[in-house]
Amino acid sequence: MNKEALFEQIKIKKSFLCVGLDTDIQKIPYFFDKNDIQSVFKFNQAIVDATADYCVAYKPNLAFYESLGLQGWEVLEQTVAYIRQNYPEQFIIADAKRGDIGNTSAMYARTFFEAMDFDAVTVAPYMGEDSVSPFLSYENKWVILLALTSNKGAFDFQFLEDKNTGDKLFEQVLKTSQQWGSSDEMMYVVGATQANMLLEIRKIVPEHFLLVPGVGAQGGSLHEVAKYGLNSACGLLVNSSRQIIYASSGQDFAVAAKQEAQKVQEEMQAILEEARLI
Amino acid sequence: MNKEALFEQIKIKKSFLCVGLDTDIQKIPYFFDKNDIQSVFKFNQAIVDATADYCVAYKPNLAFYESLGLQGWEVLEQTVAYIRQNYPEQFIIADAKRGDIGNTSAMYARTFFEAMDFDAVTVAPYMGEDSVSPFLSYENKWVILLALTSNKGAFDFQFLEDKNTGDKLFEQVLKTSQQWGSSDEMMYVVGATQANMLLEIRKIVPEHFLLVPGVGAQGGSLHEVAKYGLNSACGLLVNSSRQIIYASSGQDFAVAAKQEAQKVQEEMQAILEEARLI
Repeated sequence: MNKEALFEQIKIKKSFLCVGLDTDIQKIPYFFDKNDIQSVFKFNQAIVDATADYCVAYKPNLAFYESLGLQGWEVLEQTVAYIRQNYPEQFIIADAKRGDIGNTSAMYARTFFEAMDFDAVTVAPYMGEDSVSPFLSYENKWVILLALTSNKGAFDFQFLEDKNTGDKLFEQVLKTSQQWGSSDEMMYVVGATQANMLLEIRKIVPEHFLLVPGVGAQGGSLHEVAKYGLNSACGLLVNSSRQIIYASSGQDFAVAAKQEAQKVQEEMQAILEEARLI
Repeated sequence: MNKEALFEQIKIKKSFLCVGLDTDIQKIPYFFDKNDIQSVFKFNQAIVDATADYCVAYKPNLAFYESLGLQGWEVLEQTVAYIRQNYPEQFIIADAKRGDIGNTSAMYARTFFEAMDFDAVTVAPYMGEDSVSPFLSYENKWVILLALTSNKGAFDFQFLEDKNTGDKLFEQVLKTSQQWGSSDEMMYVVGATQANMLLEIRKIVPEHFLLVPGVGAQGGSLHEVAKYGLNSACGLLVNSSRQIIYASSGQDFAVAAKQEAQKVQEEMQAILEEARLI
């Protein structure tokens, strides 16, 4: 999916919500068989069916599937195929945070873009250009590079200030990586717990889409994020995981997820209207 | 496996060689059935049987297995189980370069240390302490943190100099991460293309094991690495992948791998003897 098509979907859905499919078999409702890993797929199906009208993207975090071994990997493949088949308009992100030397990153790219039909993969920047560029060789596929994350550990290294330029590490990542690919193939992860920092970040990457985790369970405010982060093509995908997928642990889990997603969508609609983007 | 046991193995084998099982189904000898992913396991078995006498560690890179999908994951599990069962003295490293927010890293830790019986996993430092510490909660299991990598992209960010301390990013990673775990549970990846930098690195982390990739195909020199990197408990695991596993593409591939591993082991023996470690 290219940038125009993504913005088009945002306008159609009046939403820039990404639903994080961080499905933990221990946390899904009690009536799912916890001994059958296919329960994760059934749960995902129900969540996707309930929320697809209110979001433009899904983001399974690979860790949750890999931790289930072989069958978890199968559930991931099934989930991606299910979304692709039934909701082809959705943008599907592999939250994998990969990054390795060139020939190895090329292998990962093959996994996510060929073996599975993801639209985008999250990549860690530590190993630099040749760890990222193999992911950029696929047309209409995206790299979402970690810049500023939403966790406590973000402060360990991401704010280190460069002696020569005065830039913080995450700013350096934003600046340097723009030479590797355009805003038609690269997005950035920017944690919402630092919403006011989006102002500075937007100066560095005015055109890029930003994937913002951490709204909801991790504590960011949607209005703050929109205030500093919106651009003329929306430029934001805001992720919510637990708040939506675990909205209820009862028989009404899908209905509750739908209501939660709709609530976020309505907030987003108001934001998009106020910004005259729809 | 703890640090003493690892050093003990190094003394017994007279080797600090790690064999990288970066098995690409397209690159294994022609007589393996390329349409059957089990060929990768058969190749790995033969390589392990041929080299186990000359090395102390194996390091499958996850990308090579994930890119084969479900069956690739199965081959990875089989390979780890095969080594564990037949060569219990070997240290098995998941070269995964993972790193995510706390609860997600905990999932990855479960994958590599519980679902599979790896001894260690490589982790990327960008997201800081809470992305690393979940891997440290397992007794006798190890985090191998990326510090200075051997690829060209290493120069993009790892050498950024901190305004306040003058430390380069990779030095900051070495210093800060020592507060997260001891040298009994943490190692560092240090690229061998920068062998002389090991001198400075050893000043920061005198006690830690260093995993050194890039000797061989990536161009580092074993003697240079040993000169600057050895400590009183050896403190080095030097990885070689392609040079050993693809030593021959003919019927003699296992014999050739064995000879190549033995050649490296003999060099290492001379180095260990010269350093009076054996």
